[in-house]
Amino acid sequence: MSAVITLTTDFGLSDAYVAAMKGVILGINPRARLVDVSHAVPPQDIGEAAFILGSAWRYFPPGTLHLAVVDPGVGSERRAIILKTPSACFVGPDNGVFSYVIEEYSAGPGSPVGSTPGLRSLPPGLEAVAITRTEFWRSPVSLTFHGRDVFAPVAAHLSLGHPIEEFGERVESLVMLPSPRAERRADGSLVGRVLHIDGFGNLVTSIACRDLPPARTGVAVMIAGREIRGLVRTYADAEGLLALEGSSGYLEVSLRDGSARDLLGAGVGDQVIVRPIAPRGQ
Amino acid sequence: MSAVITLTTDFGLSDAYVAAMKGVILGINPRARLVDVSHAVPPQDIGEAAFILGSAWRYFPPGTLHLAVVDPGVGSERRAIILKTPSACFVGPDNGVFSYVIEEYSAGPGSPVGSTPGLRSLPPGLEAVAITRTEFWRSPVSLTFHGRDVFAPVAAHLSLGHPIEEFGERVESLVMLPSPRAERRADGSLVGRVLHIDGFGNLVTSIACRDLPPARTGVAVMIAGREIRGLVRTYADAEGLLALEGSSGYLEVSLRDGSARDLLGAGVGDQVIVRPIAPRGQ
Amino acid sequence: MSAVITLTTDFGLSDAYVAAMKGVILGINPRARLVDVSHAVPPQDIGEAAFILGSAWRYFPPGTLHLAVVDPGVGSERRAIILKTPSACFVGPDNGVFSYVIEEYSAGPGSPVGSTPGLRSLPPGLEAVAITRTEFWRSPVSLTFHGRDVFAPVAAHLSLGHPIEEFGERVESLVMLPSPRAERRADGSLVGRVLHIDGFGNLVTSIACRDLPPARTGVAVMIAGREIRGLVRTYADAEGLLALEGSSGYLEVSLRDGSARDLLGAGVGDQVIVRPIAPRGQ
Repeated sequence: MSAVITLTTDFGLSDAYVAAMKGVILGINPRARLVDVSHAVPPQDIGEAAFILGSAWRYFPPGTLHLAVVDPGVGSERRAIILKTPSACFVGPDNGVFSYVIEEYSAGPGSPVGSTPGLRSLPPGLEAVAITRTEFWRSPVSLTFHGRDVFAPVAAHLSLGHPIEEFGERVESLVMLPSPRAERRADGSLVGRVLHIDGFGNLVTSIACRDLPPARTGVAVMIAGREIRGLVRTYADAEGLLALEGSSGYLEVSLRDGSARDLLGAGVGDQVIVRPIAPRGQ
Repeated sequence: MSAVITLTTDFGLSDAYVAAMKGVILGINPRARLVDVSHAVPPQDIGEAAFILGSAWRYFPPGTLHLAVVDPGVGSERRAIILKTPSACFVGPDNGVFSYVIEEYSAGPGSPVGSTPGLRSLPPGLEAVAITRTEFWRSPVSLTFHGRDVFAPVAAHLSLGHPIEEFGERVESLVMLPSPRAERRADGSLVGRVLHIDGFGNLVTSIACRDLPPARTGVAVMIAGREIRGLVRTYADAEGLLALEGSSGYLEVSLRDGSARDLLGAGVGDQVIVRPIAPRGQ
Repeated sequence: MSAVITLTTDFGLSDAYVAAMKGVILGINPRARLVDVSHAVPPQDIGEAAFILGSAWRYFPPGTLHLAVVDPGVGSERRAIILKTPSACFVGPDNGVFSYVIEEYSAGPGSPVGSTPGLRSLPPGLEAVAITRTEFWRSPVSLTFHGRDVFAPVAAHLSLGHPIEEFGERVESLVMLPSPRAERRADGSLVGRVLHIDGFGNLVTSIACRDLPPARTGVAVMIAGREIRGLVRTYADAEGLLALEGSSGYLEVSLRDGSARDLLGAGVGDQVIVRPIAPRGQ
């Protein structure tokens, strides 16, 4: 079957690690379609890998398999898992790397939200197994490279149509990173943080634009001691520092023809506040 | 249909932008063959993207689709276009990113050449449409990411065999960058500039080697205050700074086992002059 | 035929060189499966390319074609070759870039080992031809880019099933780099060197773990003036600097949650000594 398998790792492109995983996959399923999401995740940065994969997976066709290997605990007791959603499967370590995917299905008030990483119950509609049945693995298994010897062959066999139950026992909870959701204060303002800085220096925040008031001129964005009054629609609609709805539906802070990161000296985790103001022109 | 679709962007490989485009394409045409040209174009550098794509497209099989998304005007009034040549199709913003492709078909004296970017008439044999029919787009369309929501789905539908007329109305002129062609002076010398510096530090110039005199020893190359007498055939044929015919037929200045860029402190746009001299040995 | 063709070059990802090679291949064999091993080999670093390819090729399915273009002698008299092993084919310049592959088949006492690069006889089971028959090449051939005009079309035609004899005459010896094998001293210690430093800063050495005593606590590793007593199983089993069996079976020196390269100021070629000690606890 010519299933699509995506790869997200912190392996970089200077080593043979990613190629070894691809070779293993093609040896098991010669028709698999391999697509790189990114291999430039900073070493062992689970949060960044979770964000990148969380920004990509929804654009792939139904049935796509997503392999994520950012795995500082490789060889330790951390579990290896398969997560199944209604439209896709995810294979990787149980360390929070699928948090944004799970969060997508956790919209209700009873959803799993925490301030520290930890085990949370899976929301309805999602299934998971711990990968324990070794017959799908390469042998012997390197204790430092489960990407090649466990995750890649499991993803390849999954792409051939094996149901997830064949790979191990069901689990009801997975490790989740702290929720990235913004918090609403009593005065109506939203408090979020910078989740990711893209290659252009745009600051992607945790504030969903659907939570903002409909009038784009009715808000002010505060970040790094600066205030940006009103949102614009596109990069071409403003000079200098600007705020707009990014391509994933979250508030972004950008610099026209430049890098907002460099201008503001901003970093992942910085606080962002959006507060209601009297719309311009009133 | 298993058409080849290439991608050239300034998105880098640290974000999910390229993967999102690929996911969209594979959702529409699961058999498309995706090939990266480069995603390391400097942010918003249309000229560099035009050069890179201009160096790659001719080596692909007939019928290949080339997607180029370097798009500082995204969301503004700049047009989205499809350009069709006798052997390939090109999809992207109408900002000059296909200038080298069009230049290839503009060899005659009536060809479109300008010293500033601007609208030029298409040379004979080329066709173009403005992409206006929204039924092929993703919906809703992000105002900041037409690569994912307009260009990728249009390229994918094109690869399924839809004629270009279905995507919008015909246009007769496109935005072109200033022509990179070298200028011949009355004394017989050619004046060009550095168009591109490759990863080895080789300086690729705008001087076509077919315009040079046949005797390789009969020219001197002047660049950055240095003079290189005579051309060599290969990197192994000289010590130190050398000039030769590059793999695309243009004059290149190189440093044996080193970087000509670093040695000369050269940059894109630097002037290069080739003047006739008495051949060595005469 | 949908053969897998891998690519290893020093071309980087900023230029169109890799894309041009892929376009040429797909024009000859539209069904070829292209997989990048790495294009981030340092410019003209044959040893690094040999290591990277040597770490990747064994994980690909039987019949895979591996294309390696790190070619400082392009256009000179260096030969172009096809190397055939029982499970794969390799195409590239005859400059040592396939040394680790050949070394794999040279385990016996009569194997080709040298302290300088040079021609060595092929071990039993391997075949090679010099690529001399020009009908499979692009025409004209650029003197600076055999990757596009010689190696890519040869690999593509090979992937269609042509036997290697059709591409040129047989040769019995190929250029090999000095053997990376560790040396055993009279006192039982093994002396090797750092072969490669990966993207995490892990130091991969030339000391095969199968040559070490079975008790992990029975050895001390000396590198850069430091001594590491005993090997651990995984990164999670120690704090600070550690030594373990890497994923290719060779001794690696790593820093838990950090870069051993940065901590030690280590580089490729640095000496590593493993000496037997009284196991801990005795």
